[in-house]
Amino acid sequence: MEQLKEEVYRANMLLPEHKLVTFTWGNVSGIDRESGIMAIKPSGVEYDKLTPEDMVLVDIRTGEKAEGKWNPSSDTATHCELYRSFPNIGGVVHTHSRWATVFSQSGRGVPALGTTHGDYFYGEIPCTRKMTPEEIAGEYELETGKVIVETFSDKKPDDTPAVLVHSHGPFTWGTDAHNAVHNAVVLEELCFMAWHNLMLDPSLPAMQQELLDKHYLRKHGANAYYGQR
Amino acid sequence: MEQLKEEVYRANMLLPEHKLVTFTWGNVSGIDRESGIMAIKPSGVEYDKLTPEDMVLVDIRTGEKAEGKWNPSSDTATHCELYRSFPNIGGVVHTHSRWATVFSQSGRGVPALGTTHGDYFYGEIPCTRKMTPEEIAGEYELETGKVIVETFSDKKPDDTPAVLVHSHGPFTWGTDAHNAVHNAVVLEELCFMAWHNLMLDPSLPAMQQELLDKHYLRKHGANAYYGQR
Amino acid sequence: MEQLKEEVYRANMLLPEHKLVTFTWGNVSGIDRESGIMAIKPSGVEYDKLTPEDMVLVDIRTGEKAEGKWNPSSDTATHCELYRSFPNIGGVVHTHSRWATVFSQSGRGVPALGTTHGDYFYGEIPCTRKMTPEEIAGEYELETGKVIVETFSDKKPDDTPAVLVHSHGPFTWGTDAHNAVHNAVVLEELCFMAWHNLMLDPSLPAMQQELLDKHYLRKHGANAYYGQR
Amino acid sequence: MEQLKEEVYRANMLLPEHKLVTFTWGNVSGIDRESGIMAIKPSGVEYDKLTPEDMVLVDIRTGEKAEGKWNPSSDTATHCELYRSFPNIGGVVHTHSRWATVFSQSGRGVPALGTTHGDYFYGEIPCTRKMTPEEIAGEYELETGKVIVETFSDKKPDDTPAVLVHSHGPFTWGTDAHNAVHNAVVLEELCFMAWHNLMLDPSLPAMQQELLDKHYLRKHGANAYYGQR
Repeated sequence: MEQLKEEVYRANMLLPEHKLVTFTWGNVSGIDRESGIMAIKPSGVEYDKLTPEDMVLVDIRTGEKAEGKWNPSSDTATHCELYRSFPNIGGVVHTHSRWATVFSQSGRGVPALGTTHGDYFYGEIPCTRKMTPEEIAGEYELETGKVIVETFSDKKPDDTPAVLVHSHGPFTWGTDAHNAVHNAVVLEELCFMAWHNLMLDPSLPAMQQELLDKHYLRKHGANAYYGQR
Repeated sequence: MEQLKEEVYRANMLLPEHKLVTFTWGNVSGIDRESGIMAIKPSGVEYDKLTPEDMVLVDIRTGEKAEGKWNPSSDTATHCELYRSFPNIGGVVHTHSRWATVFSQSGRGVPALGTTHGDYFYGEIPCTRKMTPEEIAGEYELETGKVIVETFSDKKPDDTPAVLVHSHGPFTWGTDAHNAVHNAVVLEELCFMAWHNLMLDPSLPAMQQELLDKHYLRKHGANAYYGQR
Repeated sequence: MEQLKEEVYRANMLLPEHKLVTFTWGNVSGIDRESGIMAIKPSGVEYDKLTPEDMVLVDIRTGEKAEGKWNPSSDTATHCELYRSFPNIGGVVHTHSRWATVFSQSGRGVPALGTTHGDYFYGEIPCTRKMTPEEIAGEYELETGKVIVETFSDKKPDDTPAVLVHSHGPFTWGTDAHNAVHNAVVLEELCFMAWHNLMLDPSLPAMQQELLDKHYLRKHGANAYYGQR
Repeated sequence: MEQLKEEVYRANMLLPEHKLVTFTWGNVSGIDRESGIMAIKPSGVEYDKLTPEDMVLVDIRTGEKAEGKWNPSSDTATHCELYRSFPNIGGVVHTHSRWATVFSQSGRGVPALGTTHGDYFYGEIPCTRKMTPEEIAGEYELETGKVIVETFSDKKPDDTPAVLVHSHGPFTWGTDAHNAVHNAVVLEELCFMAWHNLMLDPSLPAMQQELLDKHYLRKHGANAYYGQR
């Protein structure tokens, strides 16, 4: 658990380093799947004052705090729902990063326009539907997680490790907390580029399926040959 | 008073740190409500030469200098008018920050397009009307304050702590000088995102009222649960 | 002359500090009016290797080098023409800064859209006409200066200390080399904001004449009251 | 060969310095023409862990590794094809830099809109055609090189040392690895400016041919007079 808190602390500290957060607008969690315990950033604490000991442990089955002096992030129930529904993921990130939030506020997914996208995400990164007044008035953060899961009813979360929550901002995930942050950085780059492409060519089609297949599988398929494997 | 000057000095120094000012284009003030005295940046002095002792004390009732070796900011009369008319505010900021100034120059308010907005501002951030030739030729800086106050005749300044002055730039306020700078940083983020949303979708509607209520009240209402309260 | 070279060196070094140049794409000069000698950056020398001794002295009447081990900037003849034709200026800057170059490449002037503009420039910042094939084939850099002077045939260069050369980039000037760099920084801010305003509102009118008068004269008129005068 | 590895290492390290890469998304190679051996970045290794010894030596005639502990960049076959087909080039760069990638994803060349362009590139920087499904399914990286070469069937690669690969990103080249990186930085600036010009004026024509000739030949022709020659 100390190692998990250390890893999650370090992943949180990557958010300001990659300029994905302003003030305290973001949080990272990581999970120990064996025990069902996740570590997550405390709510509203400034990044330059964080220490590994400040990470809060939460039982993802109940959503209740297991250990820690602070309240966990206000988005804790969303993280728990993602861990419960996406069994392979090991880390979750939420930010209000500028370019991904623009797509969220427009209620638009991010089309796969080039190989940078295809190297990480197997097709369009979806945007959720708007939440209903009942969902907003109810257990809001839990319902946010549920609407994300609903968005992936016909998609594999492992092949598209990011979502835009309508009128809100992005969530990304990955094999662990560090990898989830990596995907948050990639998402921001993709949103930057897609916004500029859509402005230049509003009807620009997605890239060829063959090219998307080639790039995604070159890095992620059974016969991947990118890197030092 | 020494403490107020120190606080206002520190708040002023946050402006270049957050890249909200070029050269000397901005000023922060803070008030001691008991005495009616505010501390404010001197006019035209460069940020890297400022010290706490350079802050100028001004009586907000008369607008006259109470203490200090420099002339106060040329926007002093605007600050005084805001303190007189908005009784709960403790700090005021004026900048020509890039994104907020774009909205000011277009004469447009900033619509509430997502939860980042709703976490801080309860609805659209308004832009003032143009000033009349008489107001410009008269006590211009005082009239600038009056046109801001007029803009809030049907709004609570405490729930929307920012305004765009037409063809000019933003003013923000807050519970104290530091909080007013915090709101200036948030405003700049919101204007960045809203500009990009309006370019992508010129007729994008504001966010759902239920979601705005949820986010604003989650942080600011009587039952707020964000952070460590 | 040693003092002039030192001043012009320092002014040149402000260009990378303010992120107005990539590689060696810019140059600053300053003049000693009594002797008619200007100091200017050498051609194609990298900023991080410059020293005050590298500045080249040029006689503005002949355009010939008066002293120095390097060739002067390839834009030397343009600087000389500006000093000869605008008798009050003491420094000249040329860059390919991003936002001003966009306006130059579009062949558009920068309209006065707000008080940031009005604080420094008394009205639209003009763009030159295209140069003729004869001018380009002739003494190109001298002709560049002449087409700038032609652009100011109905304007005071002291009230609008900047120009955009069509399909090329900006020149700014000022009371001395440092002030000319100051105006180059302001121009870049104004172009950033004007581009975003024109995208949002292609038919946005210029600001009110009364407001432009107020802001320009508040800082530059006989009764100026901005700053510590 | 040790000197070549050192040069190529240093050129690779310029990519993050000039903010042209995110994570490991880029690679630089340089060639020793006498031996037909190129040095290139290893695949998927992070920049802050690179050393000169990590550079991989590859025989450009066969595309096979000649020396090195790592796998060479996954784009190795593209680099080899460029060296084989463009006999004067000494260095090659590939990145996914933001602005050049936007043009690649839109499938658009970069028109020559001003003298910044003309100082380095003699006319439009082309974008390749889309690759065919057969090319993508075949020796993809080699075919990428071939489609670049095809794009230059009617152009001199030495006068236009850059290309945009459709739906992918830029390749640049130059007299050596360092010069190829220099051209990658210039390309990014040109794409930034061209994007903003095309948004403001979708039908903006290219610059005058006379001005392009003047600027390109002023720096690159037999009678060049820019710099200290």
